[in-house]
Amino acid sequence: MERKVRLSMLCEIYGKLLTKKQLSILTDYCDNDLSLSEIAENNNVTRQAVNDIIKKGESKLLEYESKLNIMKKTLEEEKLIQNILCELSKITDDSSDKQIARIINTVRKELISLNS
Amino acid sequence: MERKVRLSMLCEIYGKLLTKKQLSILTDYCDNDLSLSEIAENNNVTRQAVNDIIKKGESKLLEYESKLNIMKKTLEEEKLIQNILCELSKITDDSSDKQIARIINTVRKELISLNS
Repeated sequence: MERKVRLSMLCEIYGKLLTKKQLSILTDYCDNDLSLSEIAENNNVTRQAVNDIIKKGESKLLEYESKLNIMKKTLEEEKLIQNILCELSKITDDSSDKQIARIINTVRKELISLNS
Repeated sequence: MERKVRLSMLCEIYGKLLTKKQLSILTDYCDNDLSLSEIAENNNVTRQAVNDIIKKGESKLLEYESKLNIMKKTLEEEKLIQNILCELSKITDDSSDKQIARIINTVRKELISLNS
């Protein structure tokens, strides 16, 4: 997984355990795709200070993930749900039973909500 | 949810963020169902010290939950999976199609693994 994508996902899961400043700078970096220089200018600090905050924040996020594994579990879950959706589509492809189609549709929506 | 059950679930999710001593005492208290006096004796500390460690550990766990909501999401997910399993059993109850039964069986196993 690309570094910024992983960092963005870790921020989404564990971001509230960081300081507001760390989270804001990490979000600017990985979600808003600002350069270190742009973030430095916006926050009135040096480019080096921004770099340090990102490194420290990333290290804290990785430490939380190494202990709690929420991102790992979420990714495994997403994969499993995709498998299940794929299996279920085999039923609707093969069957013309409207009652079955209705149930599969309900289940599909519930599975997608699990994944969001 | 009963306090010890909730505490046990919080320990399972966030326990690695506590100190080893906190986690060990909380586990003795909520999973091994030891009394404060028994835990105090085993750890060679006072009953009051055990009480303080449990209170402090519980407070940290609740703080993590208030920020990350992993227990809340897990419980909602479990409920949704139960709903899905229930919906799927309507298909196998109604249909005698062996191919459909086979697919539902695969999906059921995958859903149960999601819940574990």
